[in-house]
Amino acid sequence: MTTSEAASANSGATLIRTAAIIGGGVIGSGWAARFLLNGWDVRFFDPSADAERILHAVIERGREAMPALCDSVPAEGRLYIAESTADAVAGAVYVQESTPERIEVKRAVLRSIQDACDADVVVASSTSGFMPSELQEGALRAEQIIVAHPYNPVYLLPLVEVVASAKVAEALTQRASEYLESVSMKPVVLGAEVPAHVGDRLLEALWREALWLVKDGVATTGQIDDIITHSFGLRWAQKGLFETYRVAGGQAGMKHFLEQFGPCLEWPWTKLMDVPDLDEALIDRIVDQSDEQAAGRTVMQLENERDRNLVALLKALREEDAAAGAFLNEVNRRQQ
Amino acid sequence: MTTSEAASANSGATLIRTAAIIGGGVIGSGWAARFLLNGWDVRFFDPSADAERILHAVIERGREAMPALCDSVPAEGRLYIAESTADAVAGAVYVQESTPERIEVKRAVLRSIQDACDADVVVASSTSGFMPSELQEGALRAEQIIVAHPYNPVYLLPLVEVVASAKVAEALTQRASEYLESVSMKPVVLGAEVPAHVGDRLLEALWREALWLVKDGVATTGQIDDIITHSFGLRWAQKGLFETYRVAGGQAGMKHFLEQFGPCLEWPWTKLMDVPDLDEALIDRIVDQSDEQAAGRTVMQLENERDRNLVALLKALREEDAAAGAFLNEVNRRQQ
Repeated sequence: MTTSEAASANSGATLIRTAAIIGGGVIGSGWAARFLLNGWDVRFFDPSADAERILHAVIERGREAMPALCDSVPAEGRLYIAESTADAVAGAVYVQESTPERIEVKRAVLRSIQDACDADVVVASSTSGFMPSELQEGALRAEQIIVAHPYNPVYLLPLVEVVASAKVAEALTQRASEYLESVSMKPVVLGAEVPAHVGDRLLEALWREALWLVKDGVATTGQIDDIITHSFGLRWAQKGLFETYRVAGGQAGMKHFLEQFGPCLEWPWTKLMDVPDLDEALIDRIVDQSDEQAAGRTVMQLENERDRNLVALLKALREEDAAAGAFLNEVNRRQQ
Repeated sequence: MTTSEAASANSGATLIRTAAIIGGGVIGSGWAARFLLNGWDVRFFDPSADAERILHAVIERGREAMPALCDSVPAEGRLYIAESTADAVAGAVYVQESTPERIEVKRAVLRSIQDACDADVVVASSTSGFMPSELQEGALRAEQIIVAHPYNPVYLLPLVEVVASAKVAEALTQRASEYLESVSMKPVVLGAEVPAHVGDRLLEALWREALWLVKDGVATTGQIDDIITHSFGLRWAQKGLFETYRVAGGQAGMKHFLEQFGPCLEWPWTKLMDVPDLDEALIDRIVDQSDEQAAGRTVMQLENERDRNLVALLKALREEDAAAGAFLNEVNRRQQ
């Protein structure tokens, strides 16, 4: 047991761990909900006026989702609204930073975190784009800082990409994974650090192509969304890219598929060689088409729909013991 | 009613339409299952030795899926195994070509189809890559040929991209859409023709990025699949790319999101500027990692899992009346 864990353990008969959440918004609040609803105590700090309102709304969303995700819902941890980063970090074994995506902001916040915490605490950043080695520049203890990149909504989607640099000891990454598993998340530890990690690189490639398609008038935003949700979106909720293509290769398998589709890489099937200019005209077109799709529904209504849908999909996948559903079943078995 | 429809109608009291399926395999057989199980008569032609075995296996898969997709399963149409393209096309109001992805093969087959059919028949190609105008080169009647691009498994996934060239009359495209709707598919008529249409362009962009990630050792094929299925795969089964980002923009909406993430287009978040070389070393790495993922499961086992999962997801989405589930509910209401 680490010193910080000992501090947590003093507070009760069973070991209740404490996470510090630095920076709220949708992502930071999602992390707070994830830890709290899985029984961790949470110390939360965000100086912005709106932070607490968003936090409580997100926790409430997470609370509604829990019964579908767990066979027995754990007792919630305690929430403490901290006065400062140092106040939030006190006694935490895990710190999650979710401040704006600006390197100088993140480095300053990480510095404040490290000033206030022990060397054995896991300090993780939610950054979408920066590599651990970029965050570590000028840090007090580079070896303590990793990336733990989640997906919105954090209280519902289990994935977290865990990324270390060469300076981080494997023991720290492993401890981070154990903590994340204890809040029912699926840590995937990447083999190397690259800007935007894995998921967001895949998304960015597809996003750039989608911008071209809208710009060139091939499809509207609504049509692209329909195309995704009525075809490969359904496939990818239950089998990934490579397993889907393995099956597409038929009895001849993956090698056959690759040899058959390898030549496409040379074909003009994407505008990959170029990057669309997101100018006012394209922004206006996307905003107009997106407004039409939403048909007057507010963001809150869309979030409610999304959460109900994700809960229904995860329940269906739990019954099939497949993909994220298989993962949740395993988590439930482990916790019993 | 067209001449060809009159021919079909003569065969019974109610109008039973006939589709000709030229070229089998997984896609052509999926089309045959789609039409047959939705009450159309099907005339099927594929000269290869294995074609009938695959056809019957795919129809059987489709049959098992139907009760989850329909409130009342329609009476199946009749299947006729034709001796030639001309034999298959006789009496069909809709012809679907699914031969290998080689332009000279497709043009020759389309020529045989047009030699044997009336000018008012819809002639659609399943091509993943070619544009209608490419297929139409040297055709008997360019204005009759469109693309109707489905997604595997065709009997389960509702999406079909419908693409015309400037030579095709809107009436033909509209008739194609009506036929496709009658077999419970969702036709999305694109605004312009481009190589690989929309869905496969999005997939190709993501696929190229995924190949880089495997090549550079950032993630294995299994990790990439886990990342997809535990995060944005779940999101995209129920809300598309743009609607998801609209919500991510929060109360400030789509414009805010675009302005916030616009700069990322300039960042090194993908290797979009370059194309990976799918050499022997990369093929071997992917094949080995894919074998490890499959853990001994055959393609048939993987197909069974996929179909059960897709059925469960579609049922869950029908209950939420969302995305492809809302579409199926609408189809069911329309058919009652």
